This record gives sequence, C-alpha cells and structure tokens, in this order.
Amino acid sequence: MSGADTHTDVVVVGGGIAGLAGALALSRNGQRVTLLEKADEFGEVGAGLQMAPNASRVLDRWGLLNQVREVGFSPRHLVFRDALTGQELTRQSFGRAFEERYGAPYVVVHRSDLHTILLDACRDAGVTLINATVITGTRTEAGRGVATADDGREYAGHLLIGADGLDSTLRAQIAADPPVVSGYVAYRGTVPITRDTASGDLHDVVVHLGPECHLVQYPLRQGDLLNTVAVYRSASFERGEEQLVGSDELQAAYVGCVPAVHRALSNLRTGFRWPMYDREPTDTWRDGRMLLLGDAAHPMLQYLAQGACQAMEDAAALERVTAGVDLADESRVDAALSTFVAERAPRTARVQRTARVWGDVWHVGGVGRVLRNKLFSSRADGDLEVADWLYGGQPAVGL
Amino acid sequence: MSGADTHTDVVVVGGGIAGLAGALALSRNGQRVTLLEKADEFGEVGAGLQMAPNASRVLDRWGLLNQVREVGFSPRHLVFRDALTGQELTRQSFGRAFEERYGAPYVVVHRSDLHTILLDACRDAGVTLINATVITGTRTEAGRGVATADDGREYAGHLLIGADGLDSTLRAQIAADPPVVSGYVAYRGTVPITRDTASGDLHDVVVHLGPECHLVQYPLRQGDLLNTVAVYRSASFERGEEQLVGSDELQAAYVGCVPAVHRALSNLRTGFRWPMYDREPTDTWRDGRMLLLGDAAHPMLQYLAQGACQAMEDAAALERVTAGVDLADESRVDAALSTFVAERAPRTARVQRTARVWGDVWHVGGVGRVLRNKLFSSRADGDLEVADWLYGGQPAVGL
Repeated sequence: MSGADTHTDVVVVGGGIAGLAGALALSRNGQRVTLLEKADEFGEVGAGLQMAPNASRVLDRWGLLNQVREVGFSPRHLVFRDALTGQELTRQSFGRAFEERYGAPYVVVHRSDLHTILLDACRDAGVTLINATVITGTRTEAGRGVATADDGREYAGHLLIGADGLDSTLRAQIAADPPVVSGYVAYRGTVPITRDTASGDLHDVVVHLGPECHLVQYPLRQGDLLNTVAVYRSASFERGEEQLVGSDELQAAYVGCVPAVHRALSNLRTGFRWPMYDREPTDTWRDGRMLLLGDAAHPMLQYLAQGACQAMEDAAALERVTAGVDLADESRVDAALSTFVAERAPRTARVQRTARVWGDVWHVGGVGRVLRNKLFSSRADGDLEVADWLYGGQPAVGL
Repeated sequence: MSGADTHTDVVVVGGGIAGLAGALALSRNGQRVTLLEKADEFGEVGAGLQMAPNASRVLDRWGLLNQVREVGFSPRHLVFRDALTGQELTRQSFGRAFEERYGAPYVVVHRSDLHTILLDACRDAGVTLINATVITGTRTEAGRGVATADDGREYAGHLLIGADGLDSTLRAQIAADPPVVSGYVAYRGTVPITRDTASGDLHDVVVHLGPECHLVQYPLRQGDLLNTVAVYRSASFERGEEQLVGSDELQAAYVGCVPAVHRALSNLRTGFRWPMYDREPTDTWRDGRMLLLGDAAHPMLQYLAQGACQAMEDAAALERVTAGVDLADESRVDAALSTFVAERAPRTARVQRTARVWGDVWHVGGVGRVLRNKLFSSRADGDLEVADWLYGGQPAVGL
C-alpha cells in the first residue's frame, strides 16, 4: 500500500459531467469513490446541451431520465436551414418512431441542470466529493493510482480516473499532443422566452448553416428559456487576440444571413467566447492504474453535439467492464481497462473525425454549399441510416 | 439599295459550325445565302464534340443525322468518376428510353467531320461559300446589312449574320464586354484505338472529376479513335504565359489522380492548349439588319458540352422564325429577329450560367467534393429531371 493520505477504491479527478458520470457508474458497481474538483464549488458554466438517444439511454438506465426531461425540453424536430436564405434543408422528427428506433428520446437540457442532477445522484450514491483540490501529478505505486494535490495531499485508489477535460493535466502526463485549434469560436446565451419571442420553430432544435458560421437555437426548461449558440470562424482568434465584448466581429460574421439569425445574435452573452478545440484521436488513455475519460480522452468539436453524450457512454462502458470485478485484483482490472479502451477508442475516434467533417459540411460556401443544400434537401425525414451508428446501441458494451 | 459589290438575301460572316448551320437553315427557307470565311480553306481544328438530343434533333430534321452517326459514335453511357479514387459516381444510359424521352439520340463526332457534313450540305443547298475574306466592319444601310472586307469589297443582304465566334468582330461593334477568363485551359487529342488501348469504359463518354481538373474520354469514328480532353486550372495561363509544349504543369495538375487518368494524358497533343472563356449573358445580339449567332452571341464554358448544340438550336430557331418571311419586308424581318432574341436569349443565358456552375461542381475539392460525390452517387440512372430543360423540346420555337 502506498503512503497516500486517502485510500479508497476509485479516485476521480474532475467534477464535470464526465467525472460525475464516471463516479456514479463505479458507485453503482459498489465501489467507494472519491471525486476531486479543483474549483471552490461544484458547478458548470455554459448553456444548453443535447442528449441524443445514445446518452439518454444511459440516463434512463440510471433512473435519471425523468428528472432530466422535467428540467429540460423534448424538441419535436431537428431542423436545418440555410442561413443565407432561411430555406429549410432537412428535418428529423423526434417523435415516437425515432424514440422506438433508438429506445430512448432526444432531449436538451441546461448544462448546469444536468450537472446538478448527476451531482445529486453521486451524493445519494455515497461518492465522496472534495472541492478546491488541484491535482498536479499522478503515479502508479504498489498497484494503486496515486494523485498528488498542490497542497501535498495524496489520494490513492485501485483505479484513478482522469476526467479533467480538454486541458487535462493527467493526459499531459502520458501524451504530448497539443489541442488542435479549429479557428472557430462560440458565443452562447440563454434568454427567457416571452410573448415577444419570435415564434417560428420554438419547439425545435434549429440550426442555421452559413459559410464559415452557424447558429443553433432550442428551448430549455420546459420552454421557459431560449438557448442560442453562434459559432463562426474568427480572424481575431486566429491572430491570438483574446475574448471580445460586444463583438463587431460577431455581427460581421453573419452578414448576409436572414433576419431570424441576426435577431438571435442579440440573445448572446458577448462577454465571453469559447474557442473550439479538439485533438487527434488516440487510444493512449491508460497509464498504470490511471484511465482517461470524457474530453480528457477524446475532446471533440461540437458539431455532432456528442461531447457530453460520449462522456455518458464512457461511464456506462466503465460500469459494464468493471461490473463484478474486484478492483484489488490487478490482472482483472488490467483486462477490464483493456476492454474499455478497445471498445471505446475506435468509436470516439469515429465521432471525433465525423464531427470535423460535419463542421466542414455545415460551414461550406460557394458551390459546396449548393451541393450540401441539394443533398440535404433530397433527404426524407426519418431517413436515419447515417445516424444509426451514432444513436443506435453498441452491443459490444451493452449500451 | 446600297452600293455594295455583292447583293444577296443573307450574308453570313464566319464559316464555323454556327455559320454553316445558320446558312443551311436560311437556305432551307429558300433564301440566297453568301457565307464569308476568313481562313484560306474551310475546315475545323479541335477534336470530338457532343451532340445532345437538343442538337441531334436538328440534324435529324435536316436529314444529316445518319451521316453524323456513320462517322461519329453512339456512346452507351455518360459515366462520371472521381478522378482521385476512380469510383463511379453516377451514369446515364443513352439507350432506347433516353432516345424516346427526347426524340433523338446522344451522339459524339469529330468536330471536323461535323463541319464537313454541314459544309457539304451548304454546298448542296446552293450556299455561296467565299474563303479568305476578313470582315472588318458592318453597317445597316437602306434596310440592308453590309459587311466590309479588308480588301474593300462590300457584301450586302437583307439579313447579316455574325457567326464569327468567341472573338467576334461583329459583336465588338455592338457590345464592349470582354470575354471572361475562367483560368482553366484544355488540352485535346485523338489517338487510334488499338489492341493495347485500356479497355475500360470504351463504349462510353467518361468524365473523371478532380479538384481543379477533369478529364473526358470517348470514342469517335465508330470506335477507331479515342478522344481525350484534359481541362485544369492553369497558374501559368493566369500569369499570362502562352501555350506550353510537353507541359510539366499538365502532369502536375493531375497528381493524385488514378492511373487511368495519367495514362490518358499521354494521348494529348501538348503543343497547343485552349484557354477557356465565356462572356456574361446578354441579349444585345442585334444591330439593324445584323444578328449574332453561336459563340458570337453566347459563348459558354464547355461543361455542358453545349457550345455546338446551342449553335444548332440557333440555326433551327432562325429557320423557324424566318419561314415564309419575305426578307425584303423590313417590319416582318424586325418581328422575326425580335422573336428569335426573345426566345433564344433566356435559354442560352441559362445554359451559360449553368455551365459555369457545372464546372464549379466538377472541380470542387475538400468537403464540397465529398458532398458532390454523395449527391451524384444518390442519383439513379434514368433520373433525367434536371436534364429535361436542356435536352427536351422547346415548344416555343418548335425544336
């Protein structure tokens, strides 16, 4: 046994959605879990996020889906429009046929609401939640993963989960690969839906696609809030300038777009912008007893809205591969982690790569835009062949 | 009556396909036609050209289709392939269903062979053919169009047809618009088909589509000759350099393309290249008794293979609008020419514009190429909805 200050079955580093979901998954297998978060309080910034059936299926299994639906919103359709003309290009209904096909619904929820639900579930499951703890290093010693905090304290577990996001400290210990800059930035915002809110498409996830820009809108909190995300290629970001307030660049990026898009820009908080990064796919997710989860393992561009969904899949897979495994049994843990990586890495790599291409498809201009619009327009609602791999079950890990 | 040296019903300036077809059409209406060609001999350079049903229907009406078929080739299909992978993207069969839909076949023929057939037909119809006559100016005087040659001779007719091609002298008198440089150049060549000729697709018009390049191949002369056209964006042409011999640039333009494309490049005559031009659509085709036809009126990029076809349509429309018209009756000639322009200009403008877009679709790279390939691949052979406007009849002018 190591000389750590805290000994437990599992140490999770990172209290975002991936860390909480991972902690909950392992708790459900009867493991004692300690979760370490660097911030002084648990919480989430951001706005809405989308839970596609591959993720809502996990929420359902954990008994959390109804809570998410209650604070979230069940959109009727996903609608793609051309941002320059407003023309509807294609739509996918999220009605009964969709839900039956995938065994789960498509729901949207405020990131902070999902975070609260997972946090409460972790508390209920007995996860030890520790704030204000910055992990600076990890090692594997005597068959245990040990995380060292900046105050010198050490936390040891049979398993050490690195769920510390895009800028993961733990990933940096095993891979030197840098984040990949996409050149795009996002502005997000939520505003109350009132009588004066333009009423078109207010039951749907609506995506306006423009050259080098797009805009996403959908309701949250049972239709009380309107969530808006504007993403565009930012010259100022590529020049290395930091965030802007009241950005002229934001307005300029949407010149030529229909009035509905321009009206939506006023819903955004322009005080902060998120640069969009991902990384090249890898399966270097393990080091001794440490395993990376979520964005720490497979950060992705947001075009498939799968960042949180893949973190949920990670957790469900982790729950499955460690079910009935005595974490003190090193060879069984090794086998479980190998199974996890072998099953998850090809899938998340595909999501990462597809998200990049999907972004290119969204942002294409010129004749590519004409071709994209023709192709989208030729698609029938309900033609989900290209979505099955993503939203459908993964028999290998029983999702 | 003017003081011209030669008086006739119609003077045609230009002995290419548009001029010969126009002369033949007016002869068929009983008009006396004098055709003036600047070259010392009648003839055509170039390689193959395609007669789509909208043009072969005119040949058929004139009793020339069988001659064209005999010296030409009836391809079985039009096949589009991706030049980088060789993948077949879509194909159109030219079998019975196609021919019945449009009332005429799709044939390909050497440009010089079509030219010879039209020239012989003009001779048979009694057209006066005059070589080595460069027209330097035209005017309308006393109700007649007068063309002045560089030797001072003057040719007068009730009607003066300007069919002097892209660099039309006659057009320059009524419009100051310059040709539009596309930045693309073409190399063409024909080689005998032998036992050693690679046998794939030898019954078809095959188009390989690549980023900023394409390659077209089809047989001519009943399968004895293989016609090859390579078109690519030329940096050297954009820099203002003239034609190249044994161009390294040509080879470099097709780097990354499949071996079938590289083998085809050796079939080209690299001693001469054609820069690709068109002009903005216009309906400024008339000046007094003068009317422009063919490339002089509506030069187009070659992506729809409609340059010669639209010249044939021009001639057929001219034949129709002047049928039974006494060309000495100025008001009836005015009305006929107005009808001609009103019917032809919108159509040729659409062909000019569509050819530009079609070229962009052929040459797109990146994600646009992926979208193009998906869209093409989703098309079924026989789905001709988008071709009907082009290949189908034009009731207004009885084509």
